[in-house]
Amino acid sequence: MRLIRKEQSDRLSFMIGRLSRGVETSVHCFLKTGVSWMQEGRRIIKLNTKTADSKTASEKLPKPIRYSFILKELSENPYRQFRLQYFADKWNTSKSTISEDLAEIERYLQTAREGKLLTTAGAAGGVMFQPYFGPEDLQRLKEELCRRLQDTDRIIVGDLLYMNDLFYDPNLLEKMSKGILSYYDLSTIDYVATIETKGIPLATRIAGLANKPLVIIRKRTVLTEGTSLYKNYTDSSSGQIKTLTVSLKAVHRGSRVLFVDDFMRAGGTANAVKDLLKELDTELAGIAVVMVTGAPRQRAIDNYQALVEYDGVRDGKIRITPR
Amino acid sequence: MRLIRKEQSDRLSFMIGRLSRGVETSVHCFLKTGVSWMQEGRRIIKLNTKTADSKTASEKLPKPIRYSFILKELSENPYRQFRLQYFADKWNTSKSTISEDLAEIERYLQTAREGKLLTTAGAAGGVMFQPYFGPEDLQRLKEELCRRLQDTDRIIVGDLLYMNDLFYDPNLLEKMSKGILSYYDLSTIDYVATIETKGIPLATRIAGLANKPLVIIRKRTVLTEGTSLYKNYTDSSSGQIKTLTVSLKAVHRGSRVLFVDDFMRAGGTANAVKDLLKELDTELAGIAVVMVTGAPRQRAIDNYQALVEYDGVRDGKIRITPR
Repeated sequence: MRLIRKEQSDRLSFMIGRLSRGVETSVHCFLKTGVSWMQEGRRIIKLNTKTADSKTASEKLPKPIRYSFILKELSENPYRQFRLQYFADKWNTSKSTISEDLAEIERYLQTAREGKLLTTAGAAGGVMFQPYFGPEDLQRLKEELCRRLQDTDRIIVGDLLYMNDLFYDPNLLEKMSKGILSYYDLSTIDYVATIETKGIPLATRIAGLANKPLVIIRKRTVLTEGTSLYKNYTDSSSGQIKTLTVSLKAVHRGSRVLFVDDFMRAGGTANAVKDLLKELDTELAGIAVVMVTGAPRQRAIDNYQALVEYDGVRDGKIRITPR
Repeated sequence: MRLIRKEQSDRLSFMIGRLSRGVETSVHCFLKTGVSWMQEGRRIIKLNTKTADSKTASEKLPKPIRYSFILKELSENPYRQFRLQYFADKWNTSKSTISEDLAEIERYLQTAREGKLLTTAGAAGGVMFQPYFGPEDLQRLKEELCRRLQDTDRIIVGDLLYMNDLFYDPNLLEKMSKGILSYYDLSTIDYVATIETKGIPLATRIAGLANKPLVIIRKRTVLTEGTSLYKNYTDSSSGQIKTLTVSLKAVHRGSRVLFVDDFMRAGGTANAVKDLLKELDTELAGIAVVMVTGAPRQRAIDNYQALVEYDGVRDGKIRITPR
């Protein structure tokens, strides 16, 4: 049961109005003046202070549970800032208690390699959770990718590999997203972008874990995108002229964008994305792909991260190695 | 620091082999026989029992921290089953302690509407976390969607609305995904499917929260999908013949699929998906969209869920209501 403590009586009617629009809620509102309201289902009941107070006392959570619920909410919402007062109100305790709780959680989080709490002081301050994905996790992930990609059933035609299933597996997608994010300092990134279609699941999860908006660059005109910027470029592998387009509503000028994709060969597409972003007065903060080909060594772009390297098929074996 | 307790000496060399392939790990392995190994970086050091034991004692977590770390891992991985022994090994305690911890967490989780622990007994048993998204959360989400969709800047052409930004906002995407999942019993779903392109972020997050594989149905031939099933259908709004295609590797025969998309008008596409899935010997477990149009009332499919209803633009106002 969630408690909402109200300090000012003039806002109470508004709050009750807002609460009653929900269904099946059961929320208490009480004032310092001693008048209390409680909502059960669609009914609003007036309570005396005593009832409200005795309710309050029983709402206090044991310390292990309070710790668990605070860390749960923080870790379920990585990089989202929460005010200490939010937890104090939600779990019916003082801000200083929450502050002590967080300090103790933080002490153990780092030692156990379970994450980190980032605290900012001041009026706009608060706390947010940073997931941990260390070098040993990254190495294990790359080895798992190589193992899974070595299956010769994956060879489609020429030396193309079927790898979509990697992005369709929610556990592996989670690890690849955390792995790619571990290369970057998130304070230097405002958006996570990709090109339709195969990179979208990866970019979606990376954006979610980084708590940054997603940008999807499309390969053709789509009515529902609204006013868009178009850019043509020559595809380095086919020699064809291709188009990239992005909605003007999708990205703010002056922002920094992390571009992610499933696969990169010569980097022609990534380079075209870089040019497109420049036209929008935005900056490319980084390029990350799951798989990069060994050749060509000389690429249109230079600053990129990749999890595994693919060197084609030789003697019926898929040659793939951690980067 | 993570402790791995080994019961059988014959598996130790294997484990150390596995550990040493990682980098920067610092893991202890010790045996009941009193011989212990510790790995720091790439070195493996032999320790005496005393050292190992004193290390062990200092590794015991305080109860509030142990509770927090257990619930954190469970809630970060919704619907993924964990064995109790896993937590016992990881946090250096007994299985019965973990069992007691989980029972107490569960008691408070449900009252606080923070989720639920699903426990299965037996050799293959374990525990998994089910997120909570109640009717009051669903109502609040629908109202937020209506508020955000009422902005007249969204009108593109005719009565089309720009709504991609909803899926690009990680917080809203999380809520929409939880909201849609709250309609379904997950034990009846094996896959989460969508059609490229706009539904992919939503389907990706729903699949992640449900811990089910994702299936992306495409509108045209793509080389990298491998052997695929094609199906043509007549689009009810344009009268054009369109194609749907799905990789044979994407879905197992006999499974049940939840189809999700951003938007539905007459339901012609959803109906074509239903037919396509039937050809694959799979069953449509449900259809869910974020926005459905008010007209036509008679649709090609009947069993669907929608978060909001859109009734076009009248007198310059976007008419959108919670469903």
